[in-house]
Amino acid sequence: MIGSVAFDAIETPFGKTDKIIGGAATYISLSASYFTQDISLIAVVGDDFPQDYINLLKAKGINTDGLQIKQGEKSFFWSGRYFNDMNSRETLITELNVLGDFDPIVPEQLNAPDFLMLGNLAPVVQSTLIGRLAKKPQLIVMDTMNFWMDIALEDLKHTLSMVDVLTINDEEARQLSGEYSLIKASRKIRAMGPKYLIIKKGEHGALLFYNEEVFFCPAMLLEDVFDPTGAGDTFAGGFIGYLAKTGDISFENMKRALIYGSAMASFCVEKFGTENIMDIQAEALRDRVSRFKALSHVELIG
Amino acid sequence: MIGSVAFDAIETPFGKTDKIIGGAATYISLSASYFTQDISLIAVVGDDFPQDYINLLKAKGINTDGLQIKQGEKSFFWSGRYFNDMNSRETLITELNVLGDFDPIVPEQLNAPDFLMLGNLAPVVQSTLIGRLAKKPQLIVMDTMNFWMDIALEDLKHTLSMVDVLTINDEEARQLSGEYSLIKASRKIRAMGPKYLIIKKGEHGALLFYNEEVFFCPAMLLEDVFDPTGAGDTFAGGFIGYLAKTGDISFENMKRALIYGSAMASFCVEKFGTENIMDIQAEALRDRVSRFKALSHVELIG
Repeated sequence: MIGSVAFDAIETPFGKTDKIIGGAATYISLSASYFTQDISLIAVVGDDFPQDYINLLKAKGINTDGLQIKQGEKSFFWSGRYFNDMNSRETLITELNVLGDFDPIVPEQLNAPDFLMLGNLAPVVQSTLIGRLAKKPQLIVMDTMNFWMDIALEDLKHTLSMVDVLTINDEEARQLSGEYSLIKASRKIRAMGPKYLIIKKGEHGALLFYNEEVFFCPAMLLEDVFDPTGAGDTFAGGFIGYLAKTGDISFENMKRALIYGSAMASFCVEKFGTENIMDIQAEALRDRVSRFKALSHVELIG
Repeated sequence: MIGSVAFDAIETPFGKTDKIIGGAATYISLSASYFTQDISLIAVVGDDFPQDYINLLKAKGINTDGLQIKQGEKSFFWSGRYFNDMNSRETLITELNVLGDFDPIVPEQLNAPDFLMLGNLAPVVQSTLIGRLAKKPQLIVMDTMNFWMDIALEDLKHTLSMVDVLTINDEEARQLSGEYSLIKASRKIRAMGPKYLIIKKGEHGALLFYNEEVFFCPAMLLEDVFDPTGAGDTFAGGFIGYLAKTGDISFENMKRALIYGSAMASFCVEKFGTENIMDIQAEALRDRVSRFKALSHVELIG
């Protein structure tokens, strides 16, 4: 799995944090660690990144041999503020630092994964990593964002042609396809490469498109959404973690993976940063997954 | 069933109409007519309203004895324009006309319905009608909108205390409760009277709240949403029509009614005005209901 490991500073209507551990790869690997212990991280940090944080990832069974530590450089830092509705935010600070010239080096013992998650990064870094693998993974899942559609669309399309599953939000799906109807958007985007498309709609759930089929996964209704940071990455980690655990990449199993990913994300947003996904009990996860199923379960008659 | 029968003129990115038949009661009763033939309309029009339109409702088995025709007056007229995303619209013209002093007279033979749908109207007209019934209906469903929250909140709260089910959209639920979290909003609103609350989220589906239970009904993904006018009323008509047909007002059956209502609404938005709900075949409705079920169906294992 590749992505960013970083510092975040977050402000929401409920409070604010100092620099805390963040980055797509952090959320993805923590979330996936509840499903499999065979996770390796390809990422980069500066020498300002505490060894304690790295040990914390290791303690979760995450292999950090592919985590480069650049001496004399600083880790990626993002700071943002969420507004009252939690659906919109403004970026206060983005310091690329070590991400500016990230060269994704893949240690030899890690160059043949069965499942590959490409966290949100420059598309050229994502495709470079794919090119360095010794064999094609069974499944490649890619996350990206509107930022790359704005400044690196051709690179993005090239990477898209190499992946099996794309996860983006509804606004990004509309931007990438130029279609407002999500059905039409999903067809155009899948014609660019990925056979599967997941459209994340935040508090409105998520959609999975494959051939002519669509699956809708509702979002959990929560008393309060405390901090949405990392929810999409936590979702992706649960999704690919469940697929890796079960080894089944059928559409039916992807539907289940979508529920597990959403359940993981619903924990994430209940506290700041990674706090609420550090120690989820198996029983709590089972309970939440059942609640997801109940949410849209109906028996039709006649 | 009470509501408005009116003229609408609609403009969308796909075209525009002249004055066509509209009004909450029109959509509600047409939609309900696919489930039961025991529907009576309490409404008012001016002498400009064509007898052909009234005959059309009668042909659908709708009793129009309670439809007042005010000589020398004009029917309610609304004109609006939808923007590209179909989620926002602007009102171009609102002429209350006969609705300005609507006195809901209930013919004696219609004064003891088992199921009562209160279409969107001034809350005082809705409560006046309830007061004129000979007995309490088995179920009263009420629709309303933010307009009445702005100008007649106390009347609205009085009517709310008399009903069993309220249908509003998410923005209105937040306005009425002062809570952003829909779980918290639903508790506050149900404390005002209705035991059941339906929150409509348009293209994002609908939620049904009852006690500590929540059911989420997804929205059908459509190639194009052509005209959203009347979708909420068509939903309400299918919902109460299904309940009246089955005579079962349990939570489990309300979940099914939500699916049927959503299926009816999904037909409505595919063409202008009432055009696409004039002649729905039983087979097409069954097929759409199955697609709704498939949309969120998942089998969990382990």
